Parts: sequence; structure tokens; C-alpha cells
Amino acid sequence: MNREALVDTILGDRTREIGGAGTAFAPANIALCKYWGKRNEELNLPVTSSLSVSLGSLGTHTTVEPAGQDAILFNGDVLPTNHPIAERLLKYIRLLCGGSTSGVSVETRNSIPTGAGLASSASGFAALVKALDQACGWNLAGRELTILARLGSGSATRSIYPGFVEWHRGSRDDGMDCYAEALDDQWPDLRLGVLTISAEQKRIGSTAGMKQTTTASPLYQAWPGKVAEDLPRLRTAIEQQDFQQLGETAESNALSMHATMIAAQPPVLYWLPESVGWMHRIWDARREGLPVYFTMDAGPNLKLLFLKEDESMVMRFAPDLTVVDLWEQTSCSRQGRPKT
Amino acid sequence: MNREALVDTILGDRTREIGGAGTAFAPANIALCKYWGKRNEELNLPVTSSLSVSLGSLGTHTTVEPAGQDAILFNGDVLPTNHPIAERLLKYIRLLCGGSTSGVSVETRNSIPTGAGLASSASGFAALVKALDQACGWNLAGRELTILARLGSGSATRSIYPGFVEWHRGSRDDGMDCYAEALDDQWPDLRLGVLTISAEQKRIGSTAGMKQTTTASPLYQAWPGKVAEDLPRLRTAIEQQDFQQLGETAESNALSMHATMIAAQPPVLYWLPESVGWMHRIWDARREGLPVYFTMDAGPNLKLLFLKEDESMVMRFAPDLTVVDLWEQTSCSRQGRPKT
Repeated sequence: MNREALVDTILGDRTREIGGAGTAFAPANIALCKYWGKRNEELNLPVTSSLSVSLGSLGTHTTVEPAGQDAILFNGDVLPTNHPIAERLLKYIRLLCGGSTSGVSVETRNSIPTGAGLASSASGFAALVKALDQACGWNLAGRELTILARLGSGSATRSIYPGFVEWHRGSRDDGMDCYAEALDDQWPDLRLGVLTISAEQKRIGSTAGMKQTTTASPLYQAWPGKVAEDLPRLRTAIEQQDFQQLGETAESNALSMHATMIAAQPPVLYWLPESVGWMHRIWDARREGLPVYFTMDAGPNLKLLFLKEDESMVMRFAPDLTVVDLWEQTSCSRQGRPKT
Repeated sequence: MNREALVDTILGDRTREIGGAGTAFAPANIALCKYWGKRNEELNLPVTSSLSVSLGSLGTHTTVEPAGQDAILFNGDVLPTNHPIAERLLKYIRLLCGGSTSGVSVETRNSIPTGAGLASSASGFAALVKALDQACGWNLAGRELTILARLGSGSATRSIYPGFVEWHRGSRDDGMDCYAEALDDQWPDLRLGVLTISAEQKRIGSTAGMKQTTTASPLYQAWPGKVAEDLPRLRTAIEQQDFQQLGETAESNALSMHATMIAAQPPVLYWLPESVGWMHRIWDARREGLPVYFTMDAGPNLKLLFLKEDESMVMRFAPDLTVVDLWEQTSCSRQGRPKT
């Protein structure tokens, strides 16, 4: 199975033509149980399932429409069509809509604060597939959108929905049972804060880091077992709003993911000195009674997890924290719940 | 099998009485393939084999002799007999010599620079058992000394010998095939330098850190496999004086050991911000052509590995480095090779 065949299976006899304008928003997401490692690179099939929380109104707004020639407006800047970002977006559009389209205009804007160290490819591809769904009139179900989003970027699978989202690894070779679904639970008092240590481009991208870990880390073999332990713990913690269990599990899961990378030869170490300084500070704060946990992705920044009731204490502890309202919805979020 | 029975097996019908004075030196050692995890705590039997290099004349000088009552002189200070260090030494002496001895005087002095972050328990127990061997006239073989040293401290097993030393895990429950032996190879141009980041007492001791890792780290299950890969690589590197292979393997082994700890729940993180800062600096230096690698033990300090020919470059890179002459022998080193 290649990606073209997968797209054909999903779209069936639907038109591939961008008939009009389509506009959509998709949130960024932070995994509480991480996605690290592909079992199939062509189809972006992950080795394990993962579980995330979407970042409310932080994400990507995208409009696509037919045009005489390709034009990409990215965060207000016109990108040349041979720019890496433009190429990646256009390649994805051609994959879904075929090569016959004369041209497409894409206007995409991230509401993620610049330099917060939050990846925008997840929300970017999720917003793009939703915009294409509208522009082409496909009217796909959420599950199908998550499968198509996956072909743009693995973690985009989870950015189709707000709230807590589980991405199921599936077991089929064709990837048709590898999709995301939203959990029913909401947790309005849960807070996530981004602690930006460095906004610099990292030396090793996520895809390269994943590949290096899966092929050259002897400890990676134990990672699926760790995920199998953590997923049910997280589901239970979310269902029961058990913050300690959520925090402990998410933090341990992130540290274990980084541990698999550190053991690769050569090693993949996204941590900077300040990352480790903040880890020790967080553990010290917990010992002193402040319920705050962290998670980390393929970069040096920490994302803090805490409850609304502790927000002022946490802000005194980390004044530069960017706090995200996880439950705020934007007006054009397609699957979004109404703003309360 | 308990430790008393193991001692009986080794000493047989030899006297347990400290008949006169015994004096010995044992070097500290740094593992290139780490010992991390016990399969038997009573007998200090390790989960895996390990391989170290002894630190030349850096280690412990110890004299024991019979006395009217117990007296411990430690680095020039009289220790009260209920001091934790004194208690540990006396308990070990009683284990080997029985409770009948009226008293014993121990004078022990570390030649390890203060604050270098080098453990002194390995050389301490190795020197003590050698001094007792002399004082009691046991005349034990090296292998038997390594087994007895193990009962004081696991890594003391490797401090009985100078140079490269392999500690075999063995498979017997009684620990009689779990001993160390010296490798034939010398490598006079190999240098080791200690980069002291913090001389503070660490929050989690090695024994506690090991136990936490073996019982609560899902990645630890892959550690024996990593050691099984690294040991033959190190032996070949030493035989062939292949510095790149030695450095890459030792560094990767240390990082993997730390990775198993980082994945424990709760985590064991001995690294400080400066530890990570130096890792990145070392990788940068290697990319710029300086052949320097690091290893780390259960603490924040780095030990650099390099060759004599690069010593001046390495000293410019890390001016505060304490360089160890691995092949310098002290005059009272019992198993020591003659000084050349």
C-alpha cells in the first residue's frame, strides 16, 4: 500500500477538484503519551498508540481556494513555491487533489505564539485537510480526516479534534485502522503552560530523531511496553480527573521517550542545560508541595501541567510561562464544541 | 548462600585473626562498561559483567593492625566508631575476621583529589581486603580477593587490579564464579580526565539509584542486551588500541545507563545543567575534529577519554580537567606491575 492508494480508498469516487474556498482551524496538540517511532514511513504508521490534549484556540487557520497558479501565504508572508514549507504543503495538496488542478492558493496563519517552541506541522496539516474537505465538498467523517492528516504529519492525526484525543496505532498494513478519536471527557480546570528555553531551530528534526532512535537505540525495544502501561493510566486519570496520576504518568512517559533517544548511538539529546535546571526546579517545587508536572517533546522546552487552583503559585514559580486555555474554542473550529 | 557462608568457602580453615600489620594500596577505577543493577543484594552479584580501567596511583592506602580497641583513622581524622564510614569498615572486617578479635586499628588515606567526584568505596574496600590478607597471612589469589572485595562494595571487585579489568557476572547463585580479572593489554597513551561539575553529596546514592532503576524502569530490561553488545566492542578496542571504538562505546554505554535511570518512575537524574552543557560542548568539539569522549557514573561529573597526543588540545578545551596517569604505579601496590 502506498499513500496514493490509501487516499483513493478514503476518497473513493469523490471529486479531487478544489471547487471553491474552504476555511478551517485546527489546534496544536501536546501528547501526554508520546508518539515516537514509525512502523511504516510511507504511511506514517506509528509503532505505538498515543494520547494528547489539544491546545484550545492555539493552532492554525487555513484557507484554500482555486487559483490560476500556486500561491502560498504563510503567516502573512508570500512564500516562493520552492520554499521547503510551500513544497511540503503543495505536495500534500497534490497527493489529495491530484496533479490536474491548475493552481491553488493557500493562506495559512498560526495563532501559536512565535518562539513558544510548539510544532505547527500538526495543526498545519490538520487545518489544511479540513479546509480541503470543505473546498472540495468531500464531507468526510472525523476518522477519515485523521487518516488523511496523518499523511501530512504523524501528530496531525490528533490535531483534527479539540480536547483529549487518542491516536490508535492499529495493526493493518494499509493503515485503515490507524486513526484518532476524541475522548468524551473534558477537564476545564486542567492547565498547560509552555516554558520556552530556546526557540532556535533544533539540530535534529523529529523525523530524523525518531528514525535514529528506532534503528540505533537498544532501549527502544522496551518503549512499546511503557506506552502499554501509560495509556490506560492516562485514560483513567482523565476519566477520574486524578491530576496526580495524570501528571506522574505524562512526565514519566516523556522522560522515558527522551531516555530511548539518549541511549541511541550516536545519541539524540534535545535537552539543553536549562531544560535540566527546570526539571530539578520542578521536582524541588513538588517536594515543597506545589502540584506541577512537566512533559517534553523533541526539543529543549518544557510544558508544565497544573490545575487552575494552583495557577497563581505556578506563575510565581515560573513567571515567563505561557499558559494555554485548553478549552477555548475558535469560531471556525469545525468539530469544535460551542464556546461556553 | 549468605555472605558469611561465602567468606567461609573462600577462607576455608585459614585463621581469622589479625596477627600483625598489613598495608596495601588499591586504585580507584572508572567503568567503560558500567555495573548498574544487582541480581543479589546480599552477595552483591551484578546483573551484568562490566569492564573498567584503574586510575594508576589514585586510590586508597590502608594499614590494618591488631589493637586493644577499634580505632579508625580516615584521611588523617579519627572517626568515632559509630560514624557511618567507620561502621561500614568495621562491619566488613568483622565479616572477614569474625567477632573474636579484641580490636583493630585501621588507617586509611585516599590519594584521590578531594572534590573530584570519584568514589572512594571501590578502592577503599579493595585496599582493605588486601591489607587484611597480609595482616592475617591468608595469601589469597587475586580472584579470591576480588570476590571478597565485592562484599564490601560491588565496584571494589575491579579495584583489586591495575589497568583494564573485567568483572564477570557469573551465573552461580553462590557467587563463586562472579569475580574480576585483569586484561593483559596496556595502553600507555590512553588518558582519562575528571571534569568536576559538583563535589556535593548526591541526593540518591548509587545503591538506591540502582535499586530504583532495576525495580521501576521499564527500559532496564534492555540494559543487559546493551552490555552484551558493548563488552566485546570494548575488548576489541582495547586489544587493537582503537581509540574511536573505545570512546564511542564507553560514551554510549554511560548514556544508556543514565537513560535507564531517567526512565524510572520516579526518575533518577544525576545530571546537572552543566553536565548537559559539557556533553554538547564535547560533541561540538568532536565535530570540529578533537577526539574526546566522555563517560559518567552515578553523579553529575564527566570523565573525559582522550589520547596523550591530544592532551594539550583537550586541556585548552577544558582547562579545569584533572588528568589521571592511568599507568603510574604506587610502590606498595601489591599486584602492581613494576614502574617503567
